[in-house]
Amino acid sequence: MTDVMILARDARVYLPLVEAAGLPDVTLHACETVAGARGTVAVCEVILGQPDMVARVLPEAHRLAWVQSTFAGVDALCRPGLRRDYLLTGVKGIFGPLMSEYVFGYILATERRVIDVRANQQEKAWVPLSYRSIRGLTLGVCGLGSIGGHVAETGRHFGMRVLGYRRRQGASQGVDQLFSGPGFHDFLSQCDYVVSVLPATPSTHHLFNREAFSAMKPSAVFMNVGRGSTVCEPDLMAALETRQIAGAVLDVFEEEPLAPEHPLWETEGAVVTPHIAAFSFPEEIAGIFCRNFAAWRAGAEPAYPVDFDQGY
Amino acid sequence: MTDVMILARDARVYLPLVEAAGLPDVTLHACETVAGARGTVAVCEVILGQPDMVARVLPEAHRLAWVQSTFAGVDALCRPGLRRDYLLTGVKGIFGPLMSEYVFGYILATERRVIDVRANQQEKAWVPLSYRSIRGLTLGVCGLGSIGGHVAETGRHFGMRVLGYRRRQGASQGVDQLFSGPGFHDFLSQCDYVVSVLPATPSTHHLFNREAFSAMKPSAVFMNVGRGSTVCEPDLMAALETRQIAGAVLDVFEEEPLAPEHPLWETEGAVVTPHIAAFSFPEEIAGIFCRNFAAWRAGAEPAYPVDFDQGY
Repeated sequence: MTDVMILARDARVYLPLVEAAGLPDVTLHACETVAGARGTVAVCEVILGQPDMVARVLPEAHRLAWVQSTFAGVDALCRPGLRRDYLLTGVKGIFGPLMSEYVFGYILATERRVIDVRANQQEKAWVPLSYRSIRGLTLGVCGLGSIGGHVAETGRHFGMRVLGYRRRQGASQGVDQLFSGPGFHDFLSQCDYVVSVLPATPSTHHLFNREAFSAMKPSAVFMNVGRGSTVCEPDLMAALETRQIAGAVLDVFEEEPLAPEHPLWETEGAVVTPHIAAFSFPEEIAGIFCRNFAAWRAGAEPAYPVDFDQGY
Repeated sequence: MTDVMILARDARVYLPLVEAAGLPDVTLHACETVAGARGTVAVCEVILGQPDMVARVLPEAHRLAWVQSTFAGVDALCRPGLRRDYLLTGVKGIFGPLMSEYVFGYILATERRVIDVRANQQEKAWVPLSYRSIRGLTLGVCGLGSIGGHVAETGRHFGMRVLGYRRRQGASQGVDQLFSGPGFHDFLSQCDYVVSVLPATPSTHHLFNREAFSAMKPSAVFMNVGRGSTVCEPDLMAALETRQIAGAVLDVFEEEPLAPEHPLWETEGAVVTPHIAAFSFPEEIAGIFCRNFAAWRAGAEPAYPVDFDQGY
């Protein structure tokens, strides 16, 4: 018998999905809070959970062998000082399409002036506002894993020129041109849209700072759907206020939720969304977990293992 | 020497583009109004123009051999009673990407609740509104020419199930399932989004009527980027008001511009945009014209000839 804990704010949604899979010889414990997990977690070998909550029960999880994250971002479990004597697996392949929907939803809503068109409808005003096609515009994608790769592919579908940036050199992965390392500012200077899907790691911390925004075109729009720590928010606000860049679409922040008094809410040119670019839909996560569980039980390697040092 | 008339509200934009191509032995006449074209049109063999304006000068165009439309919709030149003793060519290949941008801009803005998210930002409220992915939703495309084909392809890129409907039977053209003729209501009943790119022809007149809206799912959204005449507007408004369908995104209308007193502006669930889904960008149209002019001059067949009977 294997004790498996589901540790997530929406554990009640996950429970019937995992139950329905009928995993043999498993006792399921569903916990919606860290407090509720205490005690029980000591007997669990496996946790299906959100990284921020799992991190807080690690010291008590004495039999822990494997954690399946419910989120794409696993940085809460990769921080220095946390134990790493268990297998951590992430989720891949399901966030790319969702991120593309968000990124292109906002790119197209921006270019097609959906907010202005709506206001004109309310005024009953027939005003054919001008716009440009995104075909031929340059999209820069920072981070070329499974998510960045999907965003790049969507850009190419729409006829955009797609540039990629990754910290280390590597294969080009479906972009028209690949930049790495010191080519960062050259990359930024060419983009109409800069989309970051970078994870939170020591090497991405405040990568988007004053120098980076200075390198962008004054007409550029910066989009962050990766992690808030990659952006120096005061530098971004300064870049928007001085029109060094034209706009920003931000789904992640250095501290979440963004405090009501944070100036970003009202910064001209900033679109603030509450970390919704790619929800973890329990149906899909539960499917990955159940497939991974079968592999783990059989002594095989579950999919999407995380390298604690790299942070993804 | 060939006299060529440019007859369009933005003739002044077209003139330098055509001039720059350096067509040999050509005299260009740029006219921004029908009144301005009178007199001169009598000597012109060729007109590059918008169909509604060209239709009004046809009786005086005694030397007319060829008309290159600047619009995708050429119905103004296909009406019964108008002369058909000249070659009419349309424009293809450039509106598909623009239509996809509009259609998916509005699908994604709808699903991702861009208007509501914006309102929350103005309230500085961190509210992760729920949404669904468009992956797995069913997109129905009515009209499978070059425009509908591109919209279908974009739907498939986003992982949608794509159904196609065409009046006559034919090849499937990149859809998961093709319907034609009497299969219309079966087709409609399966769609989450019904997108019409149908042209105005006698056989598409009021195709979207009470029976058609009754066949759609109550959660369905109807999008019209084809022609206004394909929709019975009172039936559409009734369908929206009685929640027979969930929404409509309308770029074209039976009469344009939509009159300020028209009830559609305020119909719950209706998004009204002022015929902007796919602008004719003069750079692209001029390019098609100049390539077609070279073919025509050489006695070859210009691209995209229109069948007056079919209306496209």
